[in-house]
Amino acid sequence: MRLLEEIAHIGRDPHTGGYLRYAWTPADLELRAWFRAQAEQRGLDVEEDGNGNIFAWWGSGGDAVVTGSHFDSVPQGGAYDGPLGIVSALLAVDELRSQNMKPKRSIGIAVFAEEEGSRFGLACLGSRLLTGAVDPAIDLSDRDGVRLQEVITPAGRRDDILARIGCFIELHIEQGRALTQPVGVASAIWPHGRWRLDFTGEPNHAGTTLMADRRDPMITFAFTVLAANKEARQRGAHATIGRVSVQPNATNGIASRVSAWLDARAAATDTVDHLVSAVFEKAQERSKRDGTSVELTTESVSGETLFDTELRDRLAKVLDDAPILPTGAGHDAGVLSAHVPTAMLFVRNPTGVSHSPTEHATDSDCEAGVAALARVLRDLTC
Amino acid sequence: MRLLEEIAHIGRDPHTGGYLRYAWTPADLELRAWFRAQAEQRGLDVEEDGNGNIFAWWGSGGDAVVTGSHFDSVPQGGAYDGPLGIVSALLAVDELRSQNMKPKRSIGIAVFAEEEGSRFGLACLGSRLLTGAVDPAIDLSDRDGVRLQEVITPAGRRDDILARIGCFIELHIEQGRALTQPVGVASAIWPHGRWRLDFTGEPNHAGTTLMADRRDPMITFAFTVLAANKEARQRGAHATIGRVSVQPNATNGIASRVSAWLDARAAATDTVDHLVSAVFEKAQERSKRDGTSVELTTESVSGETLFDTELRDRLAKVLDDAPILPTGAGHDAGVLSAHVPTAMLFVRNPTGVSHSPTEHATDSDCEAGVAALARVLRDLTC
Repeated sequence: MRLLEEIAHIGRDPHTGGYLRYAWTPADLELRAWFRAQAEQRGLDVEEDGNGNIFAWWGSGGDAVVTGSHFDSVPQGGAYDGPLGIVSALLAVDELRSQNMKPKRSIGIAVFAEEEGSRFGLACLGSRLLTGAVDPAIDLSDRDGVRLQEVITPAGRRDDILARIGCFIELHIEQGRALTQPVGVASAIWPHGRWRLDFTGEPNHAGTTLMADRRDPMITFAFTVLAANKEARQRGAHATIGRVSVQPNATNGIASRVSAWLDARAAATDTVDHLVSAVFEKAQERSKRDGTSVELTTESVSGETLFDTELRDRLAKVLDDAPILPTGAGHDAGVLSAHVPTAMLFVRNPTGVSHSPTEHATDSDCEAGVAALARVLRDLTC
Repeated sequence: MRLLEEIAHIGRDPHTGGYLRYAWTPADLELRAWFRAQAEQRGLDVEEDGNGNIFAWWGSGGDAVVTGSHFDSVPQGGAYDGPLGIVSALLAVDELRSQNMKPKRSIGIAVFAEEEGSRFGLACLGSRLLTGAVDPAIDLSDRDGVRLQEVITPAGRRDDILARIGCFIELHIEQGRALTQPVGVASAIWPHGRWRLDFTGEPNHAGTTLMADRRDPMITFAFTVLAANKEARQRGAHATIGRVSVQPNATNGIASRVSAWLDARAAATDTVDHLVSAVFEKAQERSKRDGTSVELTTESVSGETLFDTELRDRLAKVLDDAPILPTGAGHDAGVLSAHVPTAMLFVRNPTGVSHSPTEHATDSDCEAGVAALARVLRDLTC
């Protein structure tokens, strides 16, 4: 995995070993430049789509088999989530060439922008712009208040590029503990979304304000965190509050406002909807008791993705009946699946840890992933 | 209150009307320069103590009657907490002069630095350095990692200045709803302190990690917020968590670490100690259930301050039997009281709201405060 090593230093926090690779930041731009150089070394035609996504083409025809993933990370993310799919794509092309394969269909390698939504808050932003799932004039700002359109002028839906893509295969590290063999095939992505809860109260002095006189939004927020945990467990769903912003965030002051982001996912869309409703209802009930108020804003919602069954079964068969499994993680493949037949390959994650510096896959499993992707590309193109 | 108006724009957030006056920032430096100019206009001798505190002397003898307060604010603080005491001191000197008073004792006006501890985390930092209550080599950093010693080289205990101070009187806006007349006299400051709770867990993917597999420190933190609220209410004490820091603070990632600051106060030191112990015990119990860990760090503790009873009673008598009341808020007067006879005057706060942009005292109550301070200074010096 020499290629993964080459980029291992880019955007890495020296204290934690975690990655801070946010879209269009210097680390992300360095990774893109590295990819373009790798693609050019291989004689691939590099094309940018004006939405931050890069395509490297082997062959000029339509009905291309496209593979790839993303470089950007969550804050303090791991080395595999995203880059493994891009590096494996480059290596799978090398593999086909070393076998002197002459594909009958074009092959494309895609690098999608802002998959994690870590900078502008909307996951899969690059693929959503490309496919027209979001308006290029969308009003998004990063945590410093920089607007998306100050960073790029999104081109929006690119029918010419979509028309070239015959199918899309994304290779990705698996992120639960669901895969016990080196490589598996995805069946579905759980429906999921992000909601912002804004709790407001009355700022006041921490030392002098009687407990009975307080309207402290931190209390309502804390209750809601526990309610989300309980409601998710009762439904076999997943609910997470991992991002919080407190105003004014002073030790000796009661907060005026707490904003919290709720990430909710489940096997069925109804379950997610009921989960979010139940959490909001509990928050509202508690806010009456606390003299605070709470508002719910939907930031993004993705329905269930069922990957193309024909393609899924073909991949599993080519890979000696590889296991087929769903995932709770969103991917650009989920966005593409609304437009072209789409599939995913997963590489085993021995601990299931992801979105963390300790995310890991063994070298031999990563090599099995490259070999599997090469076999799949050969089967589809040769 | 024209003088208060003159500085009303300095460090004010135009969106909220709240103040962002942190020690040694441009807003704070502008306020200090304004004070020096005001003192010089009045022919007072300005002296800096090398700890960030400024003294303006009327007369050169010892056994001086010193009054004053602080300019720095909490994040999004109000206009009165601190500056009212400084402005009232300048106006009380004007009042004595307009009456052609010739004080037999020197009068000093003090401006103390970093009273709120909003920048370096330790309240009353200026007065603690002056009195030797903290070591000038103390290791404190602001939220950007800037060390105190990069900003100033603290001189530490200044016996020469302490020797000049015969007594200290701080005028301050009242911060509860405890004062129903324009002006009152302080009896005591509740014992209080700040403790940091660090909750750590395992960062992981919000979408793919089973609820049962999680070690989410946000859950333990949320439980602790509710426990602190309950434990404080049961004891008639005050507990507040108003400042929180989450790592990595990602929407789609389980947090690795949540740090929360607990502000705890009560009428008796034992009550504060038992409150903090009980909250930490509850946090530890819950952390076992959540698979997380929690650590408690004491950042600052102030024992009960009982103001000099002789001085207190003298002030109340001069002010026509003004009411005598305790406060839950810490003040530089609390630090000074360990060294010289110390007293406080409170100006009525009609809503009790403080540490907030809506903190307010009426102009006529502020004028009553100036008149009261002038009477007290005259009584003590003439």
